Parts: sequence; C-alpha cells; structure tokens
Amino acid sequence: MPLIVTGSIGIDTVITPTGRADDILGGSCTYFAAAASFFSPVRVVGAVGEDFPEKHLGVFEHFGIDTAGLEKREGSKTFRWTGEYQRNMNDRDTLSVDINVLGEDLPPVPEGYRDSEYVFLANTHPSAQTALLENFPEAKLVVADTMDLWINTALDELKALMARLDGLVLNDSEAKLLTGESNMVAASHAIVEMGPKFVVIKKGEHGCLLNHADGLGVMHAYPALNVVDPTGAGDSFAGGMMGYLSEAGQFGVDSIRRALAYGTIVASYNIESFSLERLKEISRAEIDHRLGEFAEFVRFD
Amino acid sequence: MPLIVTGSIGIDTVITPTGRADDILGGSCTYFAAAASFFSPVRVVGAVGEDFPEKHLGVFEHFGIDTAGLEKREGSKTFRWTGEYQRNMNDRDTLSVDINVLGEDLPPVPEGYRDSEYVFLANTHPSAQTALLENFPEAKLVVADTMDLWINTALDELKALMARLDGLVLNDSEAKLLTGESNMVAASHAIVEMGPKFVVIKKGEHGCLLNHADGLGVMHAYPALNVVDPTGAGDSFAGGMMGYLSEAGQFGVDSIRRALAYGTIVASYNIESFSLERLKEISRAEIDHRLGEFAEFVRFD
Repeated sequence: MPLIVTGSIGIDTVITPTGRADDILGGSCTYFAAAASFFSPVRVVGAVGEDFPEKHLGVFEHFGIDTAGLEKREGSKTFRWTGEYQRNMNDRDTLSVDINVLGEDLPPVPEGYRDSEYVFLANTHPSAQTALLENFPEAKLVVADTMDLWINTALDELKALMARLDGLVLNDSEAKLLTGESNMVAASHAIVEMGPKFVVIKKGEHGCLLNHADGLGVMHAYPALNVVDPTGAGDSFAGGMMGYLSEAGQFGVDSIRRALAYGTIVASYNIESFSLERLKEISRAEIDHRLGEFAEFVRFD
Repeated sequence: MPLIVTGSIGIDTVITPTGRADDILGGSCTYFAAAASFFSPVRVVGAVGEDFPEKHLGVFEHFGIDTAGLEKREGSKTFRWTGEYQRNMNDRDTLSVDINVLGEDLPPVPEGYRDSEYVFLANTHPSAQTALLENFPEAKLVVADTMDLWINTALDELKALMARLDGLVLNDSEAKLLTGESNMVAASHAIVEMGPKFVVIKKGEHGCLLNHADGLGVMHAYPALNVVDPTGAGDSFAGGMMGYLSEAGQFGVDSIRRALAYGTIVASYNIESFSLERLKEISRAEIDHRLGEFAEFVRFD
C-alpha cells in the first residue's frame, strides 16, 4: 500500500559532544521516508535546490523511495540547518537555519500519486497541509505532524485540519501548548476531543503515549546505549510507525501499538549514526530482531 | 516471606496546585511498607516522637504492618516535612524540614526480626545501612535506596555497601551523579560494575530502567490522569516491587520485571490521594485488575 510523505529535505551540519558532520543529508521527509521504506513503498513530494548533491539523491535510490514528486529546482537553494547538541544529547541549539526552497511553493503532486492510501502530512503550515490533502481522494489513513509555530500562529487552521485527520503526531511540549494541560494523559484526551481519531505524543528519550478511541498505549523508548546523533529520531519514529501501518493495512488500536514499537526500533537505529548511515546498513530482519529483544525488555507476564 | 524495611516515618504538610493537606502521615518507610503490605508480611524499624498521633499509628495497623520495631520515643519529636508541588506536579520545593528523631539512633532491631529474608535499606547514611544489614544473617535479597547527599559526602561508604547489595534503587539524577553518565543505560551498566546484581533507575513520570546480569528491563509509567499528590510515588513503587519479590520468593530478571510492574501500579494508586488515603481503599484484586489493564497498554504483539 503506497505511503506518501511531504516535508523538508535538507542539508544539515550537526555538532554533538563527541563529533561533528558537515553538509549531510537531513530533513524530516528524508528521515521519515527512509524509515518507512523498510515496510512499504514510499513516495515523496518535496523540493531541493540546484546545490543538492547527486550523492544525496542516491540515498533516496538506496531506500527504493519513489522520487517522482521530488523536484530539483534551478535557481533555488536547498534548506539548510546547523545544530549543536548539549551533553545530555537531548537538548539542542539551532546555530543557523536557511529556509531557502522551503519558503517557496511545493512542487505539484504527480498524477501517479493520486491513488495514495496512506498519507503523512509532515510539519508545515496547516493550510498547506489541508490543501495537499485534496490531492489524495483515496486516502484511507491521514496522519499529520505539527509544531509550536502553527499552534501559536495558525490555531484555527490547525483545528480545521485536525477535524479531518485520522491521527496527529506531536511532541509533549507541543501537546501542552495546544491543550494547556501539563498531564500528558489529559492532553491526549483533549486532543482527541478536537477531532483526530488518535494522537501520538512523542516524549523523546522517554517514549510515547497513544490515545485512541479503543484504548491507551504507552511505550518506553528503546534503551539505547550508542547515541551518536539524535537528529531525525522523531521523524524516523513516525516513518516506522506509518510504514508499518501501510504494510499491515489496518489501523485498530492493536495495530497502532505495534506500529509504535516499530517506530521506536527504527528510531533506535537511526540515532546510532549521523544522517542515514546506520539505516543504510540495516535490514528488515535486523529491525525484527531488535523488536523481539525490546519485547523481552518490556514484558512482565 | 517477611520483608523488613527501615526509613523515615514522618508528619508531612503537602501543598499542590489544587489542594493542601496539613499534618498528614508520610515518610519513605510508611509509603514503602503500606505498598508492600498488599503482597507480603512487612516489618518496620523506625522511630517517631512523642507527638506522633495515635490515628497515624492506626494506619500501620490498617495495613497489617508489624510495628514491633517502631519506637515512639519520649522526649523526641517526629520528623516533619513541608513541600509544595509546582504546576507540572513533578517538580517540588521543600518549604521546611525538621529532622528531629531522624537525627537520633535507630531503635534496636527486635530479636524476632533476625530471620527476615527480604531486606530493604531505605535511604540513610550508607554506614548506617551497612550496620543495619548485620542484623539479618538470613537475608536472601538485600536492596537499598540512596540519595545525592551520600553520593556527595560518603561515596566510599556507599561503594562498600554496594558491593554487598543484590539491588540498588535510585533516581535518574542520582544515577547521573554517581556515574557521571547522562545516558541512563550507560549509567546502569556503570552501577552494576560497582557491585549490585541489579539496579533500578527510577525516572518519575517517565517510568524506570532495570539493568540485571540476565537482561535489561524498561517500563513506562502508568498513564495516570488523576494525580492528587505525587509524594511517596517512588517509595510506594519500591514497596510494591519488594513486596512482590518477597511474595514470589524468586528474583530472576523475569520476576524483577513483573515486580517493577506491580510497583508501577501501586504507585499509580498512591498518587491519587494525599497520604495513604487511596491505598487504604484498594485491595489486591484492584491492583491486579489495573495491572492487566496496564499490560494491554504496553503490549504490541
């Protein structure tokens, strides 16, 4: 079942307490798509600039991602981000950001993408997310991400979008901002009241919380010892989650709980390297092996 | 299998964003013993002052706790603590603390307690913990708690104690202080290197991490909606854990993982009221019911 994703494709420079990588492939769409590709065919819609290196395009090819909707735009420059992680490997400072092509219009959605049934609307202005949704009349599962900027500046548009969503994914500070609730269980109930059938609140190294009409879900993060670069952890989590749901073709609460586990595991690999280097090395079999190991860590029957 | 616990028995005044309770029964030993009593006979060693109300003694009786080792000391005053929680219900400020009888010697361990097989050494000076341990020649499972004060001021004594422990329970900031590791998995490995067969790192609302020679364990906290007063959450968690291990009579990694789940559930009830009011209302059957519900929330097979 093809899964479509939009979002940023960028060139990052990442500084951590133990290393640094310059001009590496990054962006929310990139991490999401690579993670999802272990489970499902993936299509992307996004734009990069004329400066985007061929080797970075080769990474999309490596993961078998359909790039018919990826435009390399002459006269524009690729989105760039430079960030530095603090010693705890969770808090980070943005040292510089150049929006570049992300400030321009998205490329048109290819005709061949109109039959996409699984849609992930990565974080951008909620009006743009809503407009994009019109391109997928056969969508069965629509999940969106958002951020503090839109909660603060485009709340009405976000609420209009939420009424049309199956699922919303956001982090704990965003959930608190959106609902005014400090308790994440209370926040998740308030979000479901706003429209989406389910919400996943991401808590970084602390795992995630699911609220679905048929039940709650909670998941601790994978106990990762080897954290090289946390960039893209949330995006690869969402990609693993959506990739698994596309593969499974069903999205009851049990399927979503399993999808959260797959997202957790793919994210645990992602943070073991800069950019997508670790994900490029692994196979679905390795993901399933670690999932089994994780199941041992969390079970108590 | 009798479980013995030492620690503070106090009179608390607790202020939260939504309420306040004055002169209520508190203390680490109290919360631990009440939580453990759902699973196992519990014995306490501790002292209170002549000001300790009869109604508070009645609470120990309610839970069937053996108080042969609880001394009401004439001429002394009970330990008192006043604290205020911030809006997030996690961070708290200590407004006042009167050590009182906690600054004096522990009462002697009753002769009838010498056959205790399960021992929990609640947080106090590690030399006092080590001395106390001499009273239990038949101990099969010895677990201790500690705090930042002893890590900073009595590290050699703490390390000497750790070499004799089966398990150490501490929170994430203490684990970081003890090991210098920000990554809790790395910290847990470093602690096991110091001697104990296992370590449980408590992360408050984010759950806990187990490191045992036979495997890791991770557990998200119970998704609690109704948080009235978090005081005693960590102590009731440890009490539920140790109570279950005493009942089970075995302490392999699978038993400890299940013990963490029981600790999580008892703690989730504890925070639903001030003092021990909620724990006084519930039964083992209710604990088991919520444990089953929690198992649904975390499973992904």
